[in-house]
Amino acid sequence: MMPAMARPRDARRREENEVEFSRIVAFSDGVFAIAITLLVLSLTVPEHLPRGESLTDALWDLRHALLAYAISFAVIGRYWVNHHRFFSSVTGFDGRLLGINIFYLSWVVLLPFSTDVIGNHGGEAAAVILYAVNLVGVSMVGLWMALDAAAAGLSEIDSEEMAALRHKSLFVAAVFLLSIPVALVVPEYAPLLWLALFFDPADRRARRGRVSRRGER
Amino acid sequence: MMPAMARPRDARRREENEVEFSRIVAFSDGVFAIAITLLVLSLTVPEHLPRGESLTDALWDLRHALLAYAISFAVIGRYWVNHHRFFSSVTGFDGRLLGINIFYLSWVVLLPFSTDVIGNHGGEAAAVILYAVNLVGVSMVGLWMALDAAAAGLSEIDSEEMAALRHKSLFVAAVFLLSIPVALVVPEYAPLLWLALFFDPADRRARRGRVSRRGER
Amino acid sequence: MMPAMARPRDARRREENEVEFSRIVAFSDGVFAIAITLLVLSLTVPEHLPRGESLTDALWDLRHALLAYAISFAVIGRYWVNHHRFFSSVTGFDGRLLGINIFYLSWVVLLPFSTDVIGNHGGEAAAVILYAVNLVGVSMVGLWMALDAAAAGLSEIDSEEMAALRHKSLFVAAVFLLSIPVALVVPEYAPLLWLALFFDPADRRARRGRVSRRGER
Amino acid sequence: MMPAMARPRDARRREENEVEFSRIVAFSDGVFAIAITLLVLSLTVPEHLPRGESLTDALWDLRHALLAYAISFAVIGRYWVNHHRFFSSVTGFDGRLLGINIFYLSWVVLLPFSTDVIGNHGGEAAAVILYAVNLVGVSMVGLWMALDAAAAGLSEIDSEEMAALRHKSLFVAAVFLLSIPVALVVPEYAPLLWLALFFDPADRRARRGRVSRRGER
Repeated sequence: MMPAMARPRDARRREENEVEFSRIVAFSDGVFAIAITLLVLSLTVPEHLPRGESLTDALWDLRHALLAYAISFAVIGRYWVNHHRFFSSVTGFDGRLLGINIFYLSWVVLLPFSTDVIGNHGGEAAAVILYAVNLVGVSMVGLWMALDAAAAGLSEIDSEEMAALRHKSLFVAAVFLLSIPVALVVPEYAPLLWLALFFDPADRRARRGRVSRRGER
Repeated sequence: MMPAMARPRDARRREENEVEFSRIVAFSDGVFAIAITLLVLSLTVPEHLPRGESLTDALWDLRHALLAYAISFAVIGRYWVNHHRFFSSVTGFDGRLLGINIFYLSWVVLLPFSTDVIGNHGGEAAAVILYAVNLVGVSMVGLWMALDAAAAGLSEIDSEEMAALRHKSLFVAAVFLLSIPVALVVPEYAPLLWLALFFDPADRRARRGRVSRRGER
Repeated sequence: MMPAMARPRDARRREENEVEFSRIVAFSDGVFAIAITLLVLSLTVPEHLPRGESLTDALWDLRHALLAYAISFAVIGRYWVNHHRFFSSVTGFDGRLLGINIFYLSWVVLLPFSTDVIGNHGGEAAAVILYAVNLVGVSMVGLWMALDAAAAGLSEIDSEEMAALRHKSLFVAAVFLLSIPVALVVPEYAPLLWLALFFDPADRRARRGRVSRRGER
Repeated sequence: MMPAMARPRDARRREENEVEFSRIVAFSDGVFAIAITLLVLSLTVPEHLPRGESLTDALWDLRHALLAYAISFAVIGRYWVNHHRFFSSVTGFDGRLLGINIFYLSWVVLLPFSTDVIGNHGGEAAAVILYAVNLVGVSMVGLWMALDAAAAGLSEIDSEEMAALRHKSLFVAAVFLLSIPVALVVPEYAPLLWLALFFDPADRRARRGRVSRRGER
C-alpha cells in the first residue's frame, strides 16, 4: 500500500459521496465513449466523386484512414481500461483530482483530431509528430493523475501496481518520443517503431502481479 | 448450462465488482447511443442549393439516404438489444472480454460510415459490399465474444440460448456474404436479398425457447 | 388504473431486472442527450468568409438557425421530460416495447436534421413540412408506445394521466398537421401557427390531475 | 440554511424518486460530456491542402483554435463541476427546475459553436462578443437555476455557499460583459481581460467556507 497519509487534502470520501463519485466516472466514460465514436467521422467519401474516380478508388484511398481508425480505437479503448482500473482504486476526490481528470480528458478528446490528420497525411512528419505528441500527453497526464492521487491518499493502488503503471506510461511515452526524430527523417517508417509497444516485458509482469495480489485477499 | 469451468481465467466476478462492471456496460451503451445518433449526420442539405435545384428536389434526393438511415437505426438498435441480452448473462469479466468488447464496438461504430456510403452511392457494388462486410463483421465478432465468454465460464447463457445466438449470427452473416457476389452483378438488387433476414425460422423457435425456460424457473 | 391484464405478454418485470431496465433508460437518455447536443452542429460560420462579408454579417445570417436551435432544444427537452415521465410508470418490458422505443428514438434523432433544414431554408414550404412531419411522427409514435405498453400491462400509468398524454399528443400532432397546408401557401407564416402549442388548456388540467393523485397516495 | 419553505411547489422529493432524479443528472452529464467532446470538431485540417501550403503551416494556423479548445474545455469542465456541486445539494425537483436545467444546458451546448468562431476569427470583435455573451448566459442562467431552486426549497445549499456562487457568477459575468466594449475597440486584447478570472479573491473564501462547513457535520 502507498502511504495514505502523505499529503492530506480537503477531499470527500468516495463511500460517503457515491452518487457524486459515480457522476465523475460517468462523465469520464461519456467523454471516452464520444471520443472513440467520433473517430468514425474521419472516414468520409464525398457525395459527388471527382470525375474519373470510382467509389472503389475512393474507398481504397481510405485505407490509411481506416488503419488510423483501428489503431486509435484500440488506443482510446486501452486508455479507457486504464482509467477504469485507476478509478476503481480511488477512494476519495477533491477539486484537484477533478481538475487533473478534466485536463487528462482534454488530451484524450484531441485523439480524433490527431487520428484524422495522420489518416489523411500519414506520410508527413508533422502528422506523425502530432500523433506522437498527443499520445505522450495522454500517457504523461494519466501518470501524473495517478501519482498525484496516490500521494494525496486518494487512491488505494498498491505500490506494485503503481510501479507497473509508471513503467508502462514511461515506456509508451519513450516509444512515441523516440519516433519523433525518426519521423523527421523518414516519416513513413516512424509508425513501424510503434510496434515496439507490443513487446513490453512489463505486460507479463503486471499480469503476474495482479494474480498474486488477488490470491492474498 | 454451458460447462462453466472449461477454461478458467483470471477474471473478476461481477457481483464483487458491480461498479466496474456497470462502467463497462455504460461505456458500451454510450458507444451504441452515439453511433446510432451519428447516423443522422449522413442526412444533409447544403446551405446554398445549386442553381436550379429546389429544396424539394434536394430532400427527394435524400430518399435513399433516409432509407439507409432507417435500416441502420434498426440494425444498430437490434445489435444493442443483443448486446444487452448477452451482458445480462455475463457473470464475470477480464481483460480479454474487455478487449473483445472494444473490438466489437469498433465494428459497430463503423456503421455510420457504411450507412453514409450506401445512402449516397447505393447503386454501386462497392457500397453494397462495404455495408455487407461491416454487418458480417459485427455479427461474427459478436458471436466470438459470446462463445469466448461462455467457454471461459464468464457468462451464464444456457446452451439453448447460445445455439439460437450462434444460428442467428451465422444466418445474418450468410445472408450478407451471399449478397456480395450478387452485388458484383446487379448492385441495385443485392439489398433485396437482405429481406431474407425477416424470414428466419429460428426467430420463432428462440422465442418459444425463452418462454419455456422462464416457465421452469 | 388501466386494466393491467388486457393483453398479457412474455415480459420481464422491472424490479427483477433493474440493471437491464436501467440500461434501456440510460441508452434512451444517451440518444436524447446526443440528439439535443448535435443541434449545435447546424450553427456554423465558414473558416474563410466570402469576400465582402464580415463576421457580423455571417452571424446575423444565423439568426433563423439560432431560433430553430432554441425551439428544437426546447422541443427535444420537452420530449425527454415526457419520455422520462412515461418510463417512470413502466413496470416491465419486452422485445416489443424495446422495439417501439428504438423506433421512437429514430424519430427523435431526425430532429437535428429537420432543424438544420428549417434553420437554413425556413422560408420554404418543404422545410416547414419536413419539420412538421418530424414532430407529428415523434408525438404519434410516443403516444403509440404509451398506449401499447399500457394495453400490455407494462406501465402503471393511471387513466387520467393517459388521457392527458393522449390529448397532448393529438393536440401537438393536429397543430403541426394543420400547419402543412398553411406552409404550402405562406411558408413564412406557418411557424406562427405553432405558437398555438402554448395555449393548450389541457396543460392546466394535467397539472391539477397530478396534484390530486399525489394527495391520494 | 436557506429557508426551505419560502415558495412551496408541487415537487417530487429526491429520495423517493432516486431513479428519476439520477436520470436528470445523467442526462445533464451526457450533454456536458458531448458538448465538451464536440469542441474537437473545430480542429480540422483539410484532406487536400491548398497548393503551396504544407501540413506544418496548416497545423500552425490552428494555434488559435487550439488555444480556444483548451480554454473552452477548461470552461465547460468548470461549469460541469459547478453543476455537479449544485445538484449534489438538490433535494427535490419539479417541472420548473427541469425546464430551467434544459435552458441552462442550451447555453452550454452553444459553447462549441462560439469556440469554433473565436478559434477561427479571434481577432474580430464579433467573435469575442459572441463568446463573451455565451459565457455571461451560462453564468447567469446557472445562477438563476440555483437561486430559483433554493427559493422553492428544492436545494439544501447553505447561505454561505449560495453567497459564494452568487459572487462567482456575477464576477464571471462582469468580466465578460466588461470585455465587450473593449472588444469593440481592440478585439485582439479583450481576451487578455479574461485572465482576471484567475484573480478572484472569493475563490479562497469559498474554499475556506467549505472546510468549516464540513467540520460542523
